[in-house]
Amino acid sequence: MSTVSYELKKLSSKNIVSPKGFKAAGIHCGIKHKKKDLAILVSEVPASVAGVFTTNAVQAAPLKVTKETVYNSKKMQAIFVNSGNANACTGKQGIADAYEMQKLAANKLGIEPNLVGVASTGVIGELMKMEPVRSGVKNLEINGSLENAIDFSQAIMTTDTVMKNTAYSTIIDGIEVLIAGTAKGSGMIEPNMATMLGFITTDANIESDELQKALSEITDLTFNSITVDGDTSTNDTVLVLANGLAGNQPLTPTHPDWSNFYNAMKTVCEDLAKSIARDGEGATKLIEVEVDGAISDEEARKIAKTVVGSPLVKTAVFGCDANWGRIIAAVGYSGATVDPDKITIKIGNALMVEHGEPVPFSEDELIQILKANEVKIYVSLEQGTGHGLAWGCDLTYDYVQINASYRS
Amino acid sequence: MSTVSYELKKLSSKNIVSPKGFKAAGIHCGIKHKKKDLAILVSEVPASVAGVFTTNAVQAAPLKVTKETVYNSKKMQAIFVNSGNANACTGKQGIADAYEMQKLAANKLGIEPNLVGVASTGVIGELMKMEPVRSGVKNLEINGSLENAIDFSQAIMTTDTVMKNTAYSTIIDGIEVLIAGTAKGSGMIEPNMATMLGFITTDANIESDELQKALSEITDLTFNSITVDGDTSTNDTVLVLANGLAGNQPLTPTHPDWSNFYNAMKTVCEDLAKSIARDGEGATKLIEVEVDGAISDEEARKIAKTVVGSPLVKTAVFGCDANWGRIIAAVGYSGATVDPDKITIKIGNALMVEHGEPVPFSEDELIQILKANEVKIYVSLEQGTGHGLAWGCDLTYDYVQINASYRS
Repeated sequence: MSTVSYELKKLSSKNIVSPKGFKAAGIHCGIKHKKKDLAILVSEVPASVAGVFTTNAVQAAPLKVTKETVYNSKKMQAIFVNSGNANACTGKQGIADAYEMQKLAANKLGIEPNLVGVASTGVIGELMKMEPVRSGVKNLEINGSLENAIDFSQAIMTTDTVMKNTAYSTIIDGIEVLIAGTAKGSGMIEPNMATMLGFITTDANIESDELQKALSEITDLTFNSITVDGDTSTNDTVLVLANGLAGNQPLTPTHPDWSNFYNAMKTVCEDLAKSIARDGEGATKLIEVEVDGAISDEEARKIAKTVVGSPLVKTAVFGCDANWGRIIAAVGYSGATVDPDKITIKIGNALMVEHGEPVPFSEDELIQILKANEVKIYVSLEQGTGHGLAWGCDLTYDYVQINASYRS
Repeated sequence: MSTVSYELKKLSSKNIVSPKGFKAAGIHCGIKHKKKDLAILVSEVPASVAGVFTTNAVQAAPLKVTKETVYNSKKMQAIFVNSGNANACTGKQGIADAYEMQKLAANKLGIEPNLVGVASTGVIGELMKMEPVRSGVKNLEINGSLENAIDFSQAIMTTDTVMKNTAYSTIIDGIEVLIAGTAKGSGMIEPNMATMLGFITTDANIESDELQKALSEITDLTFNSITVDGDTSTNDTVLVLANGLAGNQPLTPTHPDWSNFYNAMKTVCEDLAKSIARDGEGATKLIEVEVDGAISDEEARKIAKTVVGSPLVKTAVFGCDANWGRIIAAVGYSGATVDPDKITIKIGNALMVEHGEPVPFSEDELIQILKANEVKIYVSLEQGTGHGLAWGCDLTYDYVQINASYRS
């Protein structure tokens, strides 16, 4: 879907410490019973930073702290993360704990606290156990090895079943520039970034303001276009650190290689977003919904998200049931401008509805299409030129099981 | 919650044919494999009528036909219903079939077609099998017996596990007036009336325009305040027939007994709405969310609906997990005006959060509260005087099972 520049190269063996000057670590400190739960990502030099955060009116304590770094310091050198506790709805003590985390990381690295971002993910409404964090920070052995990058990615996971990593290179001013990312999902994922954390590193040289504009745009097309269960979280955070060590001329939209950088960053975000959707709690498959012919791109995305978020569509895909009536019903209640007599729907390559009229289809063919681990739904509206994509996953017994007893 | 007048009397042995002059029938005609699937409700005389319909942009064929009767004829004498096929997204043939259904019922009763409403519920996107309807209509033996009222209520069911009926009497001009209702749920229930049908009968004397105003108001407080899965359907319809045979003076808001009638109708609608929520697909319990202190009643209802519709809240209630963090997160993403530091949350009578700070609670006590078949969640915002209620149900393995293979 994305216009991929020929300069873009996927680097499957690379990760968040591959761009020049990045290091990481991840350990078990004792917030969780056994799994890794404390992680740090560090740049050798203060980096330009951009961030996007949950739109939930109830925001976790670490977001308050991290937003100060992003919006006031406009530079970030380290991101300190814990999993197992979201430090959300924890009142004044929660704020104090988030500031303490910022300070613990700064002391460890010998840098100013306002160069540190913090992030938390896990149960809402329980106070942080700070003792494991205080002792854990001492045990973080930060370096630029592949093992440490993996430790970082694992330590930010909650109900995720797989690590989510991606990395690309592109060419700017004739220089190879790397951009990589890691993320965690996986329930409570919806529009505006729910219980997801995303951390992106690049050695590109770019000012924070330009980076922020690009990230905000790209987020709407990627992270904000996935949904697992429609719940938006208190903690969602995506941070991009750009430390400039590649040595290119500062990137702005008028730089001749701007589109190389922009596309690389968009592709990293899209990869991470799709990984999160595919690994939605209990999910067995990725669902991609593509809408064209809407009155605007925004409406197209809204429809795509409504369809991919419909519990009835999600269960039908899980059950390999070509129940396109649920798809058209979701298009109808999306709130977008549609003319029912102009709607065309395909599942995979199979035409289900053409201009509002049902088309006979082969149940056998559809079962094969729906059995795949990626299911694509295509909706055409003939109302305008708006185009949009959204990603989600099926709704399964396992989703219910995971979420019926999350705290226990 | 509702201000119940002392004149209101619940009549547990009464039903939709109890108000004077109503008759019904329900049979198996062959749209479904075995269960009843064709039903008719008839008034001896043309009745005043009010209707509310799905807000989905994609509307089933019978809605087009029924809206003409409600909005143009403003009188209705019969409602002809089938289950097993929604006659939605069925193009021009679907419209023709809906008109044929209207005509079949009119011919049977010897009345004008424009006095007949039609409604359908079931699978979307398959053409109606009209042959069973044509032969079935001949076999409908319409009378005012309890058995026939039950047959009607059963014949409109799809995945419902129980019939939904309620009846009340009230006093108007010193005369006993009856009002009764029946409804079907049960998946795809959300805001603006999703795959639900509701039929209400009364022998009150009231003009259609007054009846419509009352129904529209009451619908927002009742049917539009329930959610099962957030999917809104193509077919939702609530119709009220008021045939005037009780002989009271015409009801208007200035009639001294107006509030008796209004409260009776509201209570009928609330009973049906709660029955639908309680019988949501796969549900094991009813969840009621009450919000006060919002900036308006509308915002209070919006928050209540967001909380009761959150998949994470629903699964937590299913799992008897007092995960109030998910409740406060849903309050936060509802889009309403909230101050996190002023939010207070109770589950049952147990305080979980007070002014944004977690309150220690007994897990054992909470498990007992959450094990009940009705769970009440209370949210106070201290932003204003807005108050609202919403109802829903838990999200279970059975929801997934029912919906993974609905068409098969």
